Amino acid sequence: MTITREDFIHRRKVLMDNIADGLIVFSANQVLPRNYGANSFPFRQDSTFLYFSGIDISGVFLLFDCSSGTVFLAGQEPGIEDTIWSGKQKKLKEWAEESGINEVLTTGQLNEKLYRDKAAGRTIHFIPPYSADKNVIFSRLLGISTDKIKSKASIELIKAIIAQRSVKSEAEVSEIESAINQVTGPMHIEAMKMAVEGKYEYEIVAGMYRVAKAKDLEFAYPVICSVRGEVLHNEQHRNRLKKGQLLLTDAGVESRNHYASDITRITPVGGKFSSQQKEIYQVVLTAQQEAIKKLKPGIRYFDIHTEAAQDIVEGLKAIGLMRGDAEEAVNAGAHALFFPHGLGHMLGLDVHDMEDLGEDYVGYDESTVRSKQFGTAYLRLAKQLKSGYVLTVEPGIYFIPALINQWQENKTLDRFINYERLSEYLEFGGVRIEDNVVITESGCRILGNAIIKSVDGIEALFT
Amino acid sequence: MTITREDFIHRRKVLMDNIADGLIVFSANQVLPRNYGANSFPFRQDSTFLYFSGIDISGVFLLFDCSSGTVFLAGQEPGIEDTIWSGKQKKLKEWAEESGINEVLTTGQLNEKLYRDKAAGRTIHFIPPYSADKNVIFSRLLGISTDKIKSKASIELIKAIIAQRSVKSEAEVSEIESAINQVTGPMHIEAMKMAVEGKYEYEIVAGMYRVAKAKDLEFAYPVICSVRGEVLHNEQHRNRLKKGQLLLTDAGVESRNHYASDITRITPVGGKFSSQQKEIYQVVLTAQQEAIKKLKPGIRYFDIHTEAAQDIVEGLKAIGLMRGDAEEAVNAGAHALFFPHGLGHMLGLDVHDMEDLGEDYVGYDESTVRSKQFGTAYLRLAKQLKSGYVLTVEPGIYFIPALINQWQENKTLDRFINYERLSEYLEFGGVRIEDNVVITESGCRILGNAIIKSVDGIEALFT
Repeated sequence: MTITREDFIHRRKVLMDNIADGLIVFSANQVLPRNYGANSFPFRQDSTFLYFSGIDISGVFLLFDCSSGTVFLAGQEPGIEDTIWSGKQKKLKEWAEESGINEVLTTGQLNEKLYRDKAAGRTIHFIPPYSADKNVIFSRLLGISTDKIKSKASIELIKAIIAQRSVKSEAEVSEIESAINQVTGPMHIEAMKMAVEGKYEYEIVAGMYRVAKAKDLEFAYPVICSVRGEVLHNEQHRNRLKKGQLLLTDAGVESRNHYASDITRITPVGGKFSSQQKEIYQVVLTAQQEAIKKLKPGIRYFDIHTEAAQDIVEGLKAIGLMRGDAEEAVNAGAHALFFPHGLGHMLGLDVHDMEDLGEDYVGYDESTVRSKQFGTAYLRLAKQLKSGYVLTVEPGIYFIPALINQWQENKTLDRFINYERLSEYLEFGGVRIEDNVVITESGCRILGNAIIKSVDGIEALFT
Repeated sequence: MTITREDFIHRRKVLMDNIADGLIVFSANQVLPRNYGANSFPFRQDSTFLYFSGIDISGVFLLFDCSSGTVFLAGQEPGIEDTIWSGKQKKLKEWAEESGINEVLTTGQLNEKLYRDKAAGRTIHFIPPYSADKNVIFSRLLGISTDKIKSKASIELIKAIIAQRSVKSEAEVSEIESAINQVTGPMHIEAMKMAVEGKYEYEIVAGMYRVAKAKDLEFAYPVICSVRGEVLHNEQHRNRLKKGQLLLTDAGVESRNHYASDITRITPVGGKFSSQQKEIYQVVLTAQQEAIKKLKPGIRYFDIHTEAAQDIVEGLKAIGLMRGDAEEAVNAGAHALFFPHGLGHMLGLDVHDMEDLGEDYVGYDESTVRSKQFGTAYLRLAKQLKSGYVLTVEPGIYFIPALINQWQENKTLDRFINYERLSEYLEFGGVRIEDNVVITESGCRILGNAIIKSVDGIEALFT
């Protein structure tokens, strides 16, 4: 089951049907400079561009005429110099053919067409650019000043695309699932087995990369692989593993067609959880498993997040780190000292799927408004779930010394928090457990073969 | 021997002494978005920013007052959210202290100061930005429209920086050299040993990456690792190695302080050169070794390039692929069918050092003007060499079917080229051999321990 030419044609047709009037223009991503123009970062196509065309080259444009249904691919053809430096390049005609697009334009023709259509009063829809270079591209293309580009982006188009991209087809789900089975899962097992005293985090990252590269795949986002798991997005890998620490590994690859996976696992260095670690780990695991059990169409993810937070409070109460009523504690935001992020997010062509289109359009709607409370404010997905949504479920418990000190000094919410006991946890680090699920007609399904996450299962890897 | 606080202070003083008047403002690089704002490419600091400060964070500015000699570091201090998401951050005061800078400003204070100084008629020097985002930053900072930023960059500043950065200190040379000894050399040996039938190019890249990551270093530029070596900058690694092919590997790491190395080696798949391969390889190796022998202060690199091209013609004549007088052939540009690039480039904090400041300022001067001829036009370094320059020496011979067909159809320079014999080489691929050298008082020295490049040495790796 793969994504086909017919899928692209169908996706474009659905979008044009939903946008009653005018034209839609998309720009491919550019190649971005690292330390000078020619030493660039690896090219990554824009995800919406991929979704509607599969065309994986920089510097080109897509133009949809919603009235006539005509689709154009525009850009410059590669020349002999491109062949010498970068090898034989596909012609635009070939890219168009593979994507089921009939019309090819030069960039000059695109400019003229847009100029004429604008002059004729037609609406030109575009999505907000997320890089300065695309801001400039749209500014030149549409004659809008760079300051105003973002505010002129089409909300109608954003909403239509999000509605389409949110519901994954079987082929899309299978992209993610097979990348998990072939690479992301084995990569995590490799990391777990490498989590022994004396290893450096960066060696483990290299071990994971080898597993990814063995299938010619790349990481979908900067790997988090750290014994300082309480730093939520720790992208440095310089620590040397010591007995008594927990290694947090948050990593996933991009499939050949650029679909992300996003898995987090925890390993005690040397393979044996301490009783303190086991207690905290079990609280997170239970919260995650309970959350997954509840997922189904119609339910609000905000409620699942809230209940997971309550599960965490209950668990921390049992350990003696929190107290009081769990519901009250979560309403007051006390859980966020330990669980300062959201339960999960949409997953697809982007690891935070469609985040460039606006997180609130993706995760919220008229009936679900983003909280302003510390912690819950980071929840990226809150609205009612639908069959075909793919999302992450990733509760965590972290002991962040700077945050604990700040709250303790201010006696923040001390009716819910046992600050005295907390002093025993300042070196603990953090625990997060994350899987990817698809919402089905009646519930949900975890994507890919199970990746070990029980205490016994993890410990057994080391025996 | 490392780069110290005193080095940074000294470098800034030299620059300010050379720029008689006004202020100099540098912007750190930004974190650039991959497929949306928060999923970014790994941060790489601007090399000039590193050279004058060693400060390795995004979103900050350096301001030098050339009259008073005062240096300012400007930016926003990290907050508690940065600690939660990215771990404990150094304060600007600490960065400034480590770099020997006394004054720290907020971004607001920097804006005010620049506004006042500009109003007072002082010149504000800056280097041309190479990314759209820095273009916007300079536009806002200096009140110049984004279209005009590049043309308003200070030629005086560009030239002063190039003069300084071109001559490497012992500490800088030792940065490059130890990265070659610890990683780049072993990485190439690893790639050579992996060059056996059935392996995929991407597996070899992963093997090299493991060697780099074992020292927590990253590649300095996208690795070229291909049995299609005739594609000069082939950054795809999807081919499966077959007996009879040559694997070209062009790769280097960045040292901890971000100095690049840049080495190319050739391995026959399975470890045994055919006689055809051996002949071509030996021509390139001889040209490279002869070029290195000639390097010393005062000599023009253009001349070394030209003589290397002549050596290549002589070699190809002996094989029967070229004919006629070698000097005439090179003057006419006939060598460029086989050797269509320059002999080398400056190397330092950038792999093409200082390319962002303008390749012609780096590699050419009043007495050495860039050629317009195909091939030689790509020569990045042509001017007189000085003691302390670090550069690459990398001749090559490639058989590029598209180029050969084009020339043959047009009978281009056919008095020098035996197109008939060439038909036997269309599957050959390409050979390039590259080392890094420092120009000394009396000659030059190859950086790092020797990395095997003789035919016998390479073949012996497989026995």
